[in-house]
Amino acid sequence: MEHIVTMNRAPWINYRPEIKVLDCTIRDGGLMNNHLFDDSVVKSVYQACVAAGIDYMEFGYKGDKKIFAPNKYGSWKFCTEDDIRRIVGENKTPLKISIMADAEKTNYHEDILPREQSVIDLIRVATYIHQIPLAVDMIKDAHNKGYETTVNLMAASLVHENELEEALEIFVGTPVDTIVLVDSFGTFYSEQIRNLSLRYLKAVEGTGKQVGIHTHNNQQLAYSNTIEAIIHGVNMLDATMNGIGRGAGNCPMELLLSFLRNPKFNIRPVLQCIQDYIIPLRDKIEWGYQIPYMITAHFNQHPRAAIELRESDHRDEYVSFYDRCSGVD
Amino acid sequence: MEHIVTMNRAPWINYRPEIKVLDCTIRDGGLMNNHLFDDSVVKSVYQACVAAGIDYMEFGYKGDKKIFAPNKYGSWKFCTEDDIRRIVGENKTPLKISIMADAEKTNYHEDILPREQSVIDLIRVATYIHQIPLAVDMIKDAHNKGYETTVNLMAASLVHENELEEALEIFVGTPVDTIVLVDSFGTFYSEQIRNLSLRYLKAVEGTGKQVGIHTHNNQQLAYSNTIEAIIHGVNMLDATMNGIGRGAGNCPMELLLSFLRNPKFNIRPVLQCIQDYIIPLRDKIEWGYQIPYMITAHFNQHPRAAIELRESDHRDEYVSFYDRCSGVD
Repeated sequence: MEHIVTMNRAPWINYRPEIKVLDCTIRDGGLMNNHLFDDSVVKSVYQACVAAGIDYMEFGYKGDKKIFAPNKYGSWKFCTEDDIRRIVGENKTPLKISIMADAEKTNYHEDILPREQSVIDLIRVATYIHQIPLAVDMIKDAHNKGYETTVNLMAASLVHENELEEALEIFVGTPVDTIVLVDSFGTFYSEQIRNLSLRYLKAVEGTGKQVGIHTHNNQQLAYSNTIEAIIHGVNMLDATMNGIGRGAGNCPMELLLSFLRNPKFNIRPVLQCIQDYIIPLRDKIEWGYQIPYMITAHFNQHPRAAIELRESDHRDEYVSFYDRCSGVD
Repeated sequence: MEHIVTMNRAPWINYRPEIKVLDCTIRDGGLMNNHLFDDSVVKSVYQACVAAGIDYMEFGYKGDKKIFAPNKYGSWKFCTEDDIRRIVGENKTPLKISIMADAEKTNYHEDILPREQSVIDLIRVATYIHQIPLAVDMIKDAHNKGYETTVNLMAASLVHENELEEALEIFVGTPVDTIVLVDSFGTFYSEQIRNLSLRYLKAVEGTGKQVGIHTHNNQQLAYSNTIEAIIHGVNMLDATMNGIGRGAGNCPMELLLSFLRNPKFNIRPVLQCIQDYIIPLRDKIEWGYQIPYMITAHFNQHPRAAIELRESDHRDEYVSFYDRCSGVD
């Protein structure tokens, strides 16, 4: 029995140098405030990421301005070169810069410049299962322009196993560098994450590609599921400052860095950024575990209804919300 | 490889009938307010436990009135028969009633009545590693009086492995029914819980005794670590309404019941109790994840300093607190 064999060992006191951490504070947090962060906040997160030894920072989306009215959203819905350079200059740091390109919501042929004209390093293509062929074209486009790429298959909890096999095989056939396991609804628990991690890892075996993970905290499992994925070999980890993100938020960066033992990581700049810039955002934005988010996750549903409830006068009416989600009401 | 074998199975959609749930809302939550709950709150928790199919409810401590001044604490520091009967009458329900007896803080020979004179079903003996012989006497006393018993070895993260082996062997030699793995500081992560669970389970193998678990949420791992323990065979699970408890609190009952599949459990009364009686307590008591609790857990320290920080004017000064805990300051 594997458990008995390892019972007297403590592998967690060492580290795996392949592990990379991606901060998506501004990108996922931006879903809660239409990406309207003050530059001071964005700059503080950037500086904290550099000082903390974080590998990537994701600023936001390359949203198509024909779809999203620029007067309704902040800079980080669009992430123009000028926007990013306003914060990072030429980014003469080891931190790589990432943006997310949503399938059907990105004019990628035009809005993503050739790599040599851009301060961006990584394009993360976000796709639902029904958009795979489009995502493949987006991956190829970004790769041909010279970028590192990931593909983030969203709402994995709605994808059937045979579809997943097919999708993973298709991704492996593209030049994508990393395939990201995404628990959009925060619905998975550890054994599900283990099984999915092993499935993704098996798909990329021998290809040189990596697997990443992006979790949500609806059931207070964002951090533990990230650890579960690490244990099985997932190497690219999403986290956000104090867990800020849509609804229940994401894996908290402070917890993740407290767990990782690579001496290149440093938790103090993260704590400083959180106390100075993130905690004050709580006056305007709510994030973190709340029972309505647990309820949508329990039923494998998008957190939309829970977010609406929390913004209404009925924010703590859990029983009627539970009945509504379960179809009783 | 065990993982591959189970990859196509989903054992979690069924349930293990041996699993028992213990609500310690009033007992552990009482550590935050000197056990001064209104009877209406205690009654609502009791009624919710009965309606939800929860197996045990723990009301508080059998504190020694020579040690704790009765005018400083609420009823649930002492849990006299009259106190409990004020809430439960003769408790003509399937719910069993538990109290905690702290080693050196309980006048157990006198204050714990013979079982036939009591409405209490379960005595949980709480002990640190240096109090084991006293705990053994307390177990025997409670057992001889006719009670079901557990022994809760507190602060397991400070206990060395050879001490633990010895302690478990001693407990196995007593009439105790359940040995509870207690992560007082909220410091363990999944692989540590796995190893400890297996150690406790190995100790009780073939004895008919059970293993329980009590977690704290300092690192947002209270629920996930409870699940981890379940996976390996731990059968007695502590949880509290909305996770209320000392510092970062405990495993949230609403999450635990949403995970357990035994049809005897019902989540709705728990949600009702939380929305009507627990959420309003937030005006007076803080509980749940906060960065100072994560910091004490990271350093395997008691949350005392973090609780004091949260009650001070410096509640969000994480960096200086981190430096203090790490010994830099």
